[in-house]
Amino acid sequence: MRTRVTDMFGIEFPIFAFSHCRDVVAAVSRAGGMGVLGALYFTPEELEMELKWIDDHVDGRPYGVDVVMPASYAGADLGVDSPQDLVARLQGMIPEGHRKFVDDLLAAHDVPPLGEESDAGRVLLGWTDATARPQVEVALRHPIALLANALGPPPADIVELAHAHGVKVAALASTPRHAVKQAEVGVDVVVAQGTEAGGHTGEISTMVLIPQVVDAVDVPVLAAGGIGDGRQMAAGMALGAEGVWTGSIWLTVEEADTPEMAKRRILEATSRDTVRSRSWTGKPARLLKNEWTDAWESAESPGTLPMPLQFMLISDALRRIGRSDAAELATFPAGQIIGTMNQVKPARDVVFGMVEQYVEAMERLERLTRD
Amino acid sequence: MRTRVTDMFGIEFPIFAFSHCRDVVAAVSRAGGMGVLGALYFTPEELEMELKWIDDHVDGRPYGVDVVMPASYAGADLGVDSPQDLVARLQGMIPEGHRKFVDDLLAAHDVPPLGEESDAGRVLLGWTDATARPQVEVALRHPIALLANALGPPPADIVELAHAHGVKVAALASTPRHAVKQAEVGVDVVVAQGTEAGGHTGEISTMVLIPQVVDAVDVPVLAAGGIGDGRQMAAGMALGAEGVWTGSIWLTVEEADTPEMAKRRILEATSRDTVRSRSWTGKPARLLKNEWTDAWESAESPGTLPMPLQFMLISDALRRIGRSDAAELATFPAGQIIGTMNQVKPARDVVFGMVEQYVEAMERLERLTRD
Repeated sequence: MRTRVTDMFGIEFPIFAFSHCRDVVAAVSRAGGMGVLGALYFTPEELEMELKWIDDHVDGRPYGVDVVMPASYAGADLGVDSPQDLVARLQGMIPEGHRKFVDDLLAAHDVPPLGEESDAGRVLLGWTDATARPQVEVALRHPIALLANALGPPPADIVELAHAHGVKVAALASTPRHAVKQAEVGVDVVVAQGTEAGGHTGEISTMVLIPQVVDAVDVPVLAAGGIGDGRQMAAGMALGAEGVWTGSIWLTVEEADTPEMAKRRILEATSRDTVRSRSWTGKPARLLKNEWTDAWESAESPGTLPMPLQFMLISDALRRIGRSDAAELATFPAGQIIGTMNQVKPARDVVFGMVEQYVEAMERLERLTRD
Repeated sequence: MRTRVTDMFGIEFPIFAFSHCRDVVAAVSRAGGMGVLGALYFTPEELEMELKWIDDHVDGRPYGVDVVMPASYAGADLGVDSPQDLVARLQGMIPEGHRKFVDDLLAAHDVPPLGEESDAGRVLLGWTDATARPQVEVALRHPIALLANALGPPPADIVELAHAHGVKVAALASTPRHAVKQAEVGVDVVVAQGTEAGGHTGEISTMVLIPQVVDAVDVPVLAAGGIGDGRQMAAGMALGAEGVWTGSIWLTVEEADTPEMAKRRILEATSRDTVRSRSWTGKPARLLKNEWTDAWESAESPGTLPMPLQFMLISDALRRIGRSDAAELATFPAGQIIGTMNQVKPARDVVFGMVEQYVEAMERLERLTRD
């Protein structure tokens, strides 16, 4: 199978696998696709260790890193450069009523406190320019083939810096207008992501979005959102994409370090068990629907805060929930495709299964047309 | 192109066109696809006239009729058979606060009253068993090839009756579970419809839904929701469908009797200008997003009523808005595909254009696989 994307990266299959788990990234790249490590949860020091591990386990195959540089967020105009100062300023912007709502919700579900384990340095994650840039600097010290930005067009100087290192740049777009802006700053690949995707996502479905983006830009497009098997891969290519970008399906592979509780819930869920919600980061993201997402939609909800304040508000709460038995509040990004995920397999088998099913779908289509 | 669906109906292209406009239905069937008339807005007498017209203009090609027999609705258990008695009983179930909300909304937009033109007999439309059955009886007196039901599995006796007349039955499903129920009552075709579709629609996207439905039932599946061009048709077939069911794209064809104001707004709209809302019928339906849909989501909204009360409540209001200049309140079903509709063409050109683009998409896919 050959597209501009397989040529660009020297990969066998145009299958991109977004994952926060280094084992998944390396396994997909070794299988002939391209793993992309989500850097969000890592400090620069941790990211350095993760990438070193991937370098040692990827057998020289290309892989990528995904950072989050939102085009807009609260505090972007404060003129504060150090993450520590930024955190202090932003903490002051969180209303007491919001803190009380979260505390009450956790109390109602008997979630124990954290004790001394709170780590204020983590509450921003890589969700601001100030926190994502150090991640980019770390990433560019490794032999990565792709730098992807998950929210809006990447800053022009980052695109230049990546290109100067021989690294291609991708960005996620949920409207044709986003895609055009991204092409203008020089991205090499646009990931057109439909509303059914897990994590931050727009309103337009993959079926409707992909042809609009393909028509709007000259660079190759990857189809994202609802892509989990070879039929969906073939559909994405029929819509004009030159490859697919997948995420949720890697949450339940053998290699994934997804918490057991989350894995179990994903394996049991149907495609109706997700919801687009601002309750995680302040920007709409598709999450597993549960008592957490319901609470933020309830009459008692104070409403969510803008990025990055919402995650700052809930960061400790998420950690407390993760260590408790309150599975009904566990919050994580998940796309509608989770309804079809009900088996744990090695990442390699998922890649090969997708390719095999893609070929079968193509043969079926060719028979229909011939008859 | 040959699938079980083209064989079943003796049609050239597996393209189904849902429309409330008889001219569109006849034009699509004559072009080699299959027009399906939405009966909802017609009294049995009007439907008789529409179908007579189609019989005279379809050149003997097959066409279908779509009715709405919801599996559940308020008043279904009242044991009232005549539409008149049912209307009287149901009117009493509409709270005064809701009537006031609608009146105030229209007053705020300077929408004039109707005068003597209110027609209480229309407020139910074909949205109950009592009002849809007479439509079915009319339809079966005509040489229709397909009877489709838009909300849930059709009653088993209706399926039998249709089959006794040599008429195939289709039903729209928005989850694999719906599809299984429909196959159990004996439908011949399942229309798997994604959330991006206009009108009544579920939550799961077309990309995610189609393979699940294809895997769940043995009868052929049509892909619906977000299908507007030949690339989307090819994608639907790649997902396992044996044809496509389209709706919104026919609103702007030359033959369509869509009100000029609505046509203009659809041609201008982007794919982000729709919203899934209960404000039309009480069940979630994708509508053009405007001040009407916003009002029902506002803090002042009394919330929507269950089907068929919501439409009874707003029926006169919709007519008043349609005759006024309050375009900002005009309410009509529209899918996300409206973002790509910006040209008025004859229905025949849309059919042929879709087929041509389908063939191009297939050729492009075959080249990718060969390389």
